[in-house]
Amino acid sequence: MTKKHAPFRIGVIGGNRPGPEFLKLAFEVGRLVARSGAVLVCGGLGGVMEEAARGAKEGGGTTIGILPGNRTADANPYIDIPVATGLGYTRNSLVAMNADVLIAVDGEYGTLSEIAYGRIYGKDVIGLGSWDIKGVTRAGTPEEAVELALKKRP
Amino acid sequence: MTKKHAPFRIGVIGGNRPGPEFLKLAFEVGRLVARSGAVLVCGGLGGVMEEAARGAKEGGGTTIGILPGNRTADANPYIDIPVATGLGYTRNSLVAMNADVLIAVDGEYGTLSEIAYGRIYGKDVIGLGSWDIKGVTRAGTPEEAVELALKKRP
Amino acid sequence: MTKKHAPFRIGVIGGNRPGPEFLKLAFEVGRLVARSGAVLVCGGLGGVMEEAARGAKEGGGTTIGILPGNRTADANPYIDIPVATGLGYTRNSLVAMNADVLIAVDGEYGTLSEIAYGRIYGKDVIGLGSWDIKGVTRAGTPEEAVELALKKRP
Amino acid sequence: MTKKHAPFRIGVIGGNRPGPEFLKLAFEVGRLVARSGAVLVCGGLGGVMEEAARGAKEGGGTTIGILPGNRTADANPYIDIPVATGLGYTRNSLVAMNADVLIAVDGEYGTLSEIAYGRIYGKDVIGLGSWDIKGVTRAGTPEEAVELALKKRP
Repeated sequence: MTKKHAPFRIGVIGGNRPGPEFLKLAFEVGRLVARSGAVLVCGGLGGVMEEAARGAKEGGGTTIGILPGNRTADANPYIDIPVATGLGYTRNSLVAMNADVLIAVDGEYGTLSEIAYGRIYGKDVIGLGSWDIKGVTRAGTPEEAVELALKKRP
Repeated sequence: MTKKHAPFRIGVIGGNRPGPEFLKLAFEVGRLVARSGAVLVCGGLGGVMEEAARGAKEGGGTTIGILPGNRTADANPYIDIPVATGLGYTRNSLVAMNADVLIAVDGEYGTLSEIAYGRIYGKDVIGLGSWDIKGVTRAGTPEEAVELALKKRP
Repeated sequence: MTKKHAPFRIGVIGGNRPGPEFLKLAFEVGRLVARSGAVLVCGGLGGVMEEAARGAKEGGGTTIGILPGNRTADANPYIDIPVATGLGYTRNSLVAMNADVLIAVDGEYGTLSEIAYGRIYGKDVIGLGSWDIKGVTRAGTPEEAVELALKKRP
Repeated sequence: MTKKHAPFRIGVIGGNRPGPEFLKLAFEVGRLVARSGAVLVCGGLGGVMEEAARGAKEGGGTTIGILPGNRTADANPYIDIPVATGLGYTRNSLVAMNADVLIAVDGEYGTLSEIAYGRIYGKDVIGLGSWDIKGVTRAGTPEEAVELALKKRP
C-alpha cells in the first residue's frame, strides 16, 4: 500500500449566531465544497458551522468537526468525523491548522482568531461578508469563494 | 436528516519503537477492530500506531490519527483522517478523549499518559503486554483485547 | 491567611521583529506598566515581548512570559516567571487569557490572534500602532495606552 | 543586565481529595521546598495542591499554580502566580513541563498522567505514598522526598 494523497480540505469558519442570509451562504459554500471533492473542516457546532456541514452532506461530501468540548456527541448532526479537544476557544488554532485553505463567512472574534491562525500557518483566507482586513481575499458569492479556495488545490 | 449515531471508536495506544512481537499484536488488534465495524483511533505515527492502522485498513476499516505536530502529512500512510494538533506530547490527552475504549499494546511513558487520561475520562483500558497497573484490564491475545473492548459498545 | 487579591495584569502583545520605533514604544509601555504596580504578561520571546519585559524590569516590576516551547530557558532574560506550554502558536490564547487587559504594539498575525482572544475572553484591547479594527481602542502614546489599560483596574 | 539563572522548581502533584494524612505530608513537602529556596509548582487547586502551596507560603517561598480553567481567580489562596490555561485535564502536561523535578503525594489518575509526563519530559519523579511504578523513586518521608528532589538542582 502506498501513501495516499490526503484529500484537499477546505475550512469554513464563522459564528454561532449569524443572520439568516449568512446561514444560506454557509450552506451553499458547504455544498460547493463537497461537490468539488474537497473535505469540509469546521468547528463542529451551530450557526455557520452547522449550515456549512449540512450543505456538504447535501453535496455528498465528508465533514470533520474540531470541537471545543471533550465530547464527540456535541457535534452538530452533519459532522461525520467529530474530534473532541477539550481546549475551549483555544481549539480555534486547530481548526485553521487542519484546513488547506479557509473560507470565512460573517463571524465575530472567534472567526477573527481563526483567520489569524490561518495566516500564521500560511493558509489563504477568503472572506464572504467577513472581516475585511489585510490577509483576507474578498469574495462576492459562495461560487467565487469556493473557486478561489480551489485554486490552492495542488 | 436525523442525528447519526456516531460509530464506536476503539483507541489503540502504544509506543513508537516496540519489539517485533508487539508490532504483530498491534496489527492483529487493528484488523479485528476494523472487522468489528469500529473506527480505530490512534496517535497517527509509527510503531504500534502504524501497525494497528495498517491492520485496520487490511480489515476494511476507518482510521483516525491524532498527531502531535502541525502537519497532517506527518501521519503514517494508513491513516484516513489525520488530525494535526501542534500540541506535542500534550496531544496524548486528545487521543484518549476521542476513543470510547482504549487498548494499550506494550508502551512506555507516552502510553502511560494515555492510559491515565483514559481513566480520567472514564474510559475502560485494556492492556496487552502493557502497563500492569490499577485500572488496566489485562488481555492475553488480540482477540481477547478486542472482545473486551467491544463489551463497551452501547 | 485570607485570599490575596491577585495583582492587576497588563498583557503586552506584539511581534518578534518590529521596527525600531516600536521597540522603543514597547519598552516605554513596559516601564509604565511596572510603575503603575501592574504585573506584565507577554509571550516571553523577543521583539516587542522582550522590550516590554526589559522596560518592566527597569520600572521595578514583575514579568510573566507564556512561552510557545516546552523549555522555560527559552524566555528572554527579562522574564521573572517563564511558563512553558509546548503549544506553539496555540499558546497565544493563553497569553490573552492571563491578562486583565491587553496593549498591542505593532504586530502581525500572531498579535491579531491575541487581540481576537482578548475580545473572546471579554478583555479590553488597546492598540499602539497595531491592528486598527473593531474592538481595538487606539492610543497615541505609551502613556495613553497604559492610562487606558489602568482604567480597567478594579 | 545578564540572563538570570531561573530558580529551581519543584512540582508537587497529587489529588484533590486525599486522606488527611496525605494533606499533612503535602503541607510538609511544600514547607521544605520553600525552605530550600526552590519555587513550588502545582496544579493550583485543592487537596494536595493547596496544602503544598500553603506549606510553601508558611516556609516563605513562591508558588506557581497551573490551572485547568480559564480564570486565574480559581487558584487556591496560597498561589502567588496563577496561570490559567483553559485546557482542562490536558493542562497536567504543563504542570510536569514547568517543574525541574516532581514529588507525587498520593494521587489518582490525574497524578498518574503528571508522573507519565514528568518521565516523558525527562524529569525525575519521587513518590510519597503515590503510584509505585517504574520511573517513580519512593521516599518514606517529606524530608527524604525533598532531599531527593534537591539532588537534581544544578
